Amino acid sequence: MTATIIDGTKIAEEIRSQVKAEAAALKEKHGLVAGLATVLVGDNPASQAYVRMKRKTCADLGLTSFGHELPATATQAEVVDLVRRLGADPAVHGILVPLPLPNQISEEAALREVPLAKDVDGFNPVNMGNLGMKNRMPTFAPCTPAGVIELLDRTGARIEGAHAVVLGRSNIVGLPVSLLLLGRNATLTVCHSRTKDIGAVTREADILVVAIGKTRFVTAGMVKPGAVVIDVGINAIPDATKKSGKRLVGDVDYDAVKEVAGAITPVPGGVGPMTIAMLMRNTITAAKRSVGA
Amino acid sequence: MTATIIDGTKIAEEIRSQVKAEAAALKEKHGLVAGLATVLVGDNPASQAYVRMKRKTCADLGLTSFGHELPATATQAEVVDLVRRLGADPAVHGILVPLPLPNQISEEAALREVPLAKDVDGFNPVNMGNLGMKNRMPTFAPCTPAGVIELLDRTGARIEGAHAVVLGRSNIVGLPVSLLLLGRNATLTVCHSRTKDIGAVTREADILVVAIGKTRFVTAGMVKPGAVVIDVGINAIPDATKKSGKRLVGDVDYDAVKEVAGAITPVPGGVGPMTIAMLMRNTITAAKRSVGA
Repeated sequence: MTATIIDGTKIAEEIRSQVKAEAAALKEKHGLVAGLATVLVGDNPASQAYVRMKRKTCADLGLTSFGHELPATATQAEVVDLVRRLGADPAVHGILVPLPLPNQISEEAALREVPLAKDVDGFNPVNMGNLGMKNRMPTFAPCTPAGVIELLDRTGARIEGAHAVVLGRSNIVGLPVSLLLLGRNATLTVCHSRTKDIGAVTREADILVVAIGKTRFVTAGMVKPGAVVIDVGINAIPDATKKSGKRLVGDVDYDAVKEVAGAITPVPGGVGPMTIAMLMRNTITAAKRSVGA
Repeated sequence: MTATIIDGTKIAEEIRSQVKAEAAALKEKHGLVAGLATVLVGDNPASQAYVRMKRKTCADLGLTSFGHELPATATQAEVVDLVRRLGADPAVHGILVPLPLPNQISEEAALREVPLAKDVDGFNPVNMGNLGMKNRMPTFAPCTPAGVIELLDRTGARIEGAHAVVLGRSNIVGLPVSLLLLGRNATLTVCHSRTKDIGAVTREADILVVAIGKTRFVTAGMVKPGAVVIDVGINAIPDATKKSGKRLVGDVDYDAVKEVAGAITPVPGGVGPMTIAMLMRNTITAAKRSVGA
């Protein structure tokens, strides 16, 4: 059996098109342009690249982006003050504070200042708490985990009653995707570096989400035939045939696992494009809610 | 093999003794009496009983309790106002808002008003979010889940690397105990009413925590020989030999499972006594922190 390839690039494009249409409608009906503010502290290259890509996507879809930059030496008070000002600014519907922040700044204290209605990244700890709790709804779910769920839904994977196994428990992916899967009534297992005989656990998975940051960690023998495999990993490996001398692969041994799995995401082109698409969707949702639309 | 019986009554008594000694020392060294405020809204009998028991325990251990009662018709604003006043009161070191609250009041909004330093119940959603996140620490963990971990530790159970299976995912027990076990580096599986073939999952458990609210749900055949079984359930069943006509049993078929498990908590006398003991410990800790002791 060869797995269905889950085309994240295409799905993300569909979501972006929908956001673009909603942005146009919001402007026409309510005279409102959705606005996303970013608070970039210091000069982390990955954060800078993420902010650039986000700015471009905003422009493409008809959203306004407000880029704010603070030096790596910024104080906690300066970050909090800026976030508070953006929280009070009616032109700003979503606020994004790319992590990691410089050491002198408490991530938790900074993220707690993002008003829940503008927490399009879903990292305010109140939203994280509500993500896991029954009868509570976060205003927004974190973008990469929400993208994983979206890919599962669009693949037609049944989450309820499935045994979902998540490898990794990071604050940004592993933990929130675990809580989302549990909220969707999966039986949930979370594995990590201290798990014994990880293959025995993963072979039980109907849905396997891998976010462990280890190149091609998941081999074909670790996957139950027919399982849906979502690979969140992005790792660069040397490749002499490429101009850059390297290429990207995931945490899953894609070529081998696709012969066993029922469906699988490629890297690149799987989960990757979903993060910004879900951020754009969260931002347009925040803007719509601000006018009751 | 007959299991070690985990004596929650004795362990809770040890914790209470320690709290009593700490309360005396705090009074002697800092002239400070630890204070616990309760906000009882409406007339839920279970909440009333819990508050009564807590008041008695405070008195026994040398803590002050401040009982506040609001009618079942209280508004959201009245509850929030009271919690804020207690939050500002320097004689109050811990604030407890027994759940459930009447329908017109948002639990989340009320609990969010409890200052983190006084959140001895650990139910402020910020604390719940931090419970699961890496490199974050809740100010306090919820009392029953913290009691479960305490019982495991005092039994000498190794949590790190163990496969911990939790049955149930309630906000009060299942979810927070799951996050605590994950934080202690267990491989974690969460099962619930939608889980298929639950026995196949529980038979993999080195540590089995049951909080599912079903009388004697876990049978001997569902338990791996040697596993540590923690039974959080409290169910009343008819018993003609008792004056009251009933007695309490857990979610585990104790008599049969103790012949298979390595260690097991009885009901009553297992997890039950731990909740108030942990609440008292959290309150004395809050008071000590307030003076940097």
